[in-house]
Amino acid sequence: MAAAPVWSVDPRSGKRREQVAVEATDREVDAAVRAAHDARGALADRTVRAAFLRTAADRLEAARDKLVEAADAESALGPARLTGELARTCYQLRAFADLVDEGAFLDVIIDHPDATATPPVPDLRRCKVPLGVVAVYAASNFPFAFSVAGGDTASALAAGCPAVVKAHPGHPALSELVAGELRGAAAEQGLPEGVLGLVHGFAAGTALIGHPLVAAAGFTGSVRGGRALFDAAAARPVPIPFHGELGSLNPVLVTEAAAAERAADIGAGLAGSMTLGTGQFCVKPGLVLVPAGPAGDRLAQSLTDAVAATGPGVLLDHRMREAFLAGVAARAALPGVRAPLRAGADGEHAVTAGFLTVPAARLTGAGAHDLLLEECFGPVTVVARYQGEDEATAVLARLPGSLTATVHLSAAEAADGGRGAALLAALTPLAGRVLVDAWPTGVAVAPAQHHGGPYPATTSTSTSVGGTAVERWLRPVAYQNVPQALLPPELRDDNPLGLPRRLDGRLEH
Amino acid sequence: MAAAPVWSVDPRSGKRREQVAVEATDREVDAAVRAAHDARGALADRTVRAAFLRTAADRLEAARDKLVEAADAESALGPARLTGELARTCYQLRAFADLVDEGAFLDVIIDHPDATATPPVPDLRRCKVPLGVVAVYAASNFPFAFSVAGGDTASALAAGCPAVVKAHPGHPALSELVAGELRGAAAEQGLPEGVLGLVHGFAAGTALIGHPLVAAAGFTGSVRGGRALFDAAAARPVPIPFHGELGSLNPVLVTEAAAAERAADIGAGLAGSMTLGTGQFCVKPGLVLVPAGPAGDRLAQSLTDAVAATGPGVLLDHRMREAFLAGVAARAALPGVRAPLRAGADGEHAVTAGFLTVPAARLTGAGAHDLLLEECFGPVTVVARYQGEDEATAVLARLPGSLTATVHLSAAEAADGGRGAALLAALTPLAGRVLVDAWPTGVAVAPAQHHGGPYPATTSTSTSVGGTAVERWLRPVAYQNVPQALLPPELRDDNPLGLPRRLDGRLEH
Repeated sequence: MAAAPVWSVDPRSGKRREQVAVEATDREVDAAVRAAHDARGALADRTVRAAFLRTAADRLEAARDKLVEAADAESALGPARLTGELARTCYQLRAFADLVDEGAFLDVIIDHPDATATPPVPDLRRCKVPLGVVAVYAASNFPFAFSVAGGDTASALAAGCPAVVKAHPGHPALSELVAGELRGAAAEQGLPEGVLGLVHGFAAGTALIGHPLVAAAGFTGSVRGGRALFDAAAARPVPIPFHGELGSLNPVLVTEAAAAERAADIGAGLAGSMTLGTGQFCVKPGLVLVPAGPAGDRLAQSLTDAVAATGPGVLLDHRMREAFLAGVAARAALPGVRAPLRAGADGEHAVTAGFLTVPAARLTGAGAHDLLLEECFGPVTVVARYQGEDEATAVLARLPGSLTATVHLSAAEAADGGRGAALLAALTPLAGRVLVDAWPTGVAVAPAQHHGGPYPATTSTSTSVGGTAVERWLRPVAYQNVPQALLPPELRDDNPLGLPRRLDGRLEH
Repeated sequence: MAAAPVWSVDPRSGKRREQVAVEATDREVDAAVRAAHDARGALADRTVRAAFLRTAADRLEAARDKLVEAADAESALGPARLTGELARTCYQLRAFADLVDEGAFLDVIIDHPDATATPPVPDLRRCKVPLGVVAVYAASNFPFAFSVAGGDTASALAAGCPAVVKAHPGHPALSELVAGELRGAAAEQGLPEGVLGLVHGFAAGTALIGHPLVAAAGFTGSVRGGRALFDAAAARPVPIPFHGELGSLNPVLVTEAAAAERAADIGAGLAGSMTLGTGQFCVKPGLVLVPAGPAGDRLAQSLTDAVAATGPGVLLDHRMREAFLAGVAARAALPGVRAPLRAGADGEHAVTAGFLTVPAARLTGAGAHDLLLEECFGPVTVVARYQGEDEATAVLARLPGSLTATVHLSAAEAADGGRGAALLAALTPLAGRVLVDAWPTGVAVAPAQHHGGPYPATTSTSTSVGGTAVERWLRPVAYQNVPQALLPPELRDDNPLGLPRRLDGRLEH
C-alpha cells in the first residue's frame, strides 16, 4: 500500500497547495521515538538546553517573513496576528531558557540526618529529573504558539525531555519549516536532531501514544480526539501522564449592577473577544449570563452593533467551517433560542460572526438545552438572559469545567470584599483562571499564568502556558545516604550552582 | 438481601474476633461522600486545619494503648513495631500541620502588569486550591501509617480536602477506632464529622471511585487492585487523578568491590531489611544482584546465617500467607533457581523467612524468568548471581519501575565521582528513591522524601510520604485583574500572611 500523501491546503479556496510529506508508518514513528530517546543524554546539560531554546528563538525570528507567509497560506489567520503569535512563541522559548538557568523548577530539597525525628531521618536529597520522550499533539488554531515550537515542546525541552511532535494536518508545510529551524538550532548547539521529531498522520498519532518509550504527552485540541488519546494513554501496559487541553465554554457573568453601569462597554468588549481570530480561541467566551431587562437589552444591542461591524473571516479549514455552521444551526433550532445576529456562511469559504440568546431558565431543569453548554468553535456565543441572581447561580452550578470564568462587576461590587469576593469564590470551582472586568482571550506568558482547568478543559491539574508548564515533564527522585563525591552538583551541600532550595526545612535562595 | 457483615479476624489463629460493621451500600457511600463534600467549606481555614491535624495526633497518642492492642490483634505486627508506627503517624500529622502553617505549598505567584512583555502581561495571581473530596484506599501492612490516619488522609486534610477512607478488610476494628479519634478531633475544632468518612467493603471501594463528587484518590496496595481502580478512575465521564502505590521489586546491586570489602555486613544488612515486619514492607529488597565467586558466596552465607536466626512470623492475613507460599513455590520451581534457605509454612498460621538464588543470566534473553522480576510479598528475596558487570547491567535494563533502587559500593567506589556516579545515574531511571550503602526499608517522614516511582511502583509521578505529598490534592488557579479588595489574603500585595511567594519573577520568603 502506498504511503498516504500529506497535503497543504489553502483554507481561503479549499484547494491543495502542495504535497508536503507522506503519513508516517509505524516504523517511522518508532524511528523518531528512538532517536528522541537516544538524545536524552545530550539534553541533560542545563546550559546547553537554555542555549538551544534561545538559538531556536533566534532562528525562528530570523525566518519570520518566510514562516508568517507559510502560516498564513495554511491558516488564513492573517500576517498581523501571525507575526504577533510568532513573537509570542519566541518570547516563550526565551522565558523557558531563563527558567532553565534559574533552576528553581528542579525543586531541590535537602534534609541532613536527624536522629530526633520519628522515625529518624537519614541524609535525603530530592530533585526533579526529566521523564523521557514527550509526545506533543499540535493544535491548528495557534500554528506557532500551540504547535511544533509551542508551549508543550518548549516546556518539554526545558525539562530536558526530547519531543516528538504529531503535526496538525491544518499546517503541515509550516510544521516542517518550524521543525527544520528547531533542528538547525539543535545542530548549532551540538545536539542531535533527534531531540525534535515530527510525524504526520492520524495513525502516527495513535502509534505515538502507544509507544513504550514515550513517557508523557501534551495535547491541545478537541474533546473527542483528546479523550481518545487520554484513554489510550491510560490503557497502556505502563500508563503515562496525558496533559490534554480539550475544550472550554469560558462562562461570563455580568451582574445586574455591572450591566446597569456600563452595558455598552461590556457589549463591545464581548464582541471583540468572541470574534478575535474569527472566534477560534480556546478561551473564547462561549456563554454569557446577562440580566433580563433594559440594561441587558442595551448590552445586547451594543454586542449586535459591534459584531455586525466585524467583517467575514475564513476558518482554519473546511471541516471546521462545516462543524461551525452545523453547530450554529443546531443551537439556533432549539426552542426558545433566538438569533439577533445570525452567524453563518459568507460565500463558499468565509463565515460571518453572530450570537444567540436564550432565557437562562432554558439551561436548567428537565429538558435543559445542554447543547448550549458545549463549546462551539468559531465566531459565535450564547447570551443567556437571567431573571434574578438565583437563575444565574443555577446555570453556573450546571457548567462543565472551563479554562476561564469571568465576572463583570459594578464599581461598587468591585470594591466590596463581601459581594464581589463571594462571586469570585463561586466562579473558582469552574475554571483554572478567573477574571474580573476583563476578557479571557489573550493568554499571557508569565510565571503566574495558569492555562488549564477542570475536565474537560484539561485532563490533568496542569497548565500548558507559563513557567509551571515545565512541571508536567518531570518526576522527583530522592537520593539517600549518597556520598558528596557522587552527588550531582544540584544536590551538593556547597550548592555550586546557586540553586534555590529547601535546606533542613527552610527555604533558601 | 441482608448487608454483608464485616469481621475482625485474628491472623494468629485465623478465627473471627467480632463483627465490626456491615459493608456499605451504594447509598451509604453516597451519604459519606456528600457529607465530605459539604464539609469542604469548613476546611478552608488553614488555621483550623492545622489545629485539627494536631488535635488528631494528640488524641491518637492519648489512645495509644487501646489502639496498639487493637492493631496487634488484627495484624500480628507486634506491639513494639505498632507503637513505633503510631508515633510515626502522629509525627506525620504534626508535620503536615506545620506545612499548613507555613503555606509554601500554596505556590503563590504574583505578576504585576507588564506592558513590555510579548504579549503584555495583565495583573495575574496564582495559588493552589483544594481539589475536593479525596477517596483513600487503606493498606494492610501499615495499619496506622498507610491507613485511616495515614499519609494519604493527612495530606488530603492538609490540602483542605475532606477524605472518605475505604477501610482495609485486614483491620476493620482498628479502622473504626482511628476514624472515631479523627472525628473526635474534628468535633473539638468545630469541624463537621463529615471531613472524615469511613466505608467498608469491596463494592464500596468501587462505588467510591465512580462517585461524581470524588475529585481524586490515593491508594496503597496490590498491582491488581490498584490497576483496576486506576482504570475505573480514568474511565469516568470526568476522569480524576489516581495516585496509587501498586508494587515494587526494589532492586539492589552489590558491586564486586563492595562484596570483596564487606560481604558479611551486606549479607546481614540484607537479612535485616528483607525480614523486617515479616517481609511485608513495600520497600523490601526483592531482587539482589550479587557477584558470582567467593566474595558473593560469603555474602550468601552471611545472609543464610542471619535469616536462619530469624524466628517465624505471622503474616497479615491468611490470604496473604497462601499467596506468599504459592509465590515462593512457583519461583523455586523455575529451572536454575535454588533455595539455600527455603521460606515456607511454620505450623498452620506462621511462616519462616528464606531466599532464592538464580544465575543472573536466567533473568535476561529468551525464556527469562520474568516471575522473578515481580514482587513477592513476604519474607523472601531473590539473589541473582552475576558474572561481570555487563550481566548485572543487562538485568537492570529489564526491571520494571520500583519505589527504590540501591547500590552497595566499596569505599573506593563511593569516593570516585566517575564510577560511583555512573552507577547512581544507571539506577535513577528505575526508581523514585536511590540509596547508596543503605537499605530501603524505613521511609523517613521528611521534606526531601519521595515515596513513589515509575509504574507499577506508582500510577503517577507523586509521593505518598513527605511534605510534597500534599501536592496531589491541589490544583492551581490564576486570578486576573482582580481588585485587591476582592483577593484572598494569600494573594494580596501586602502579603498579610507572610507567605513565601514568587513576585514579578523573583522568589521571596
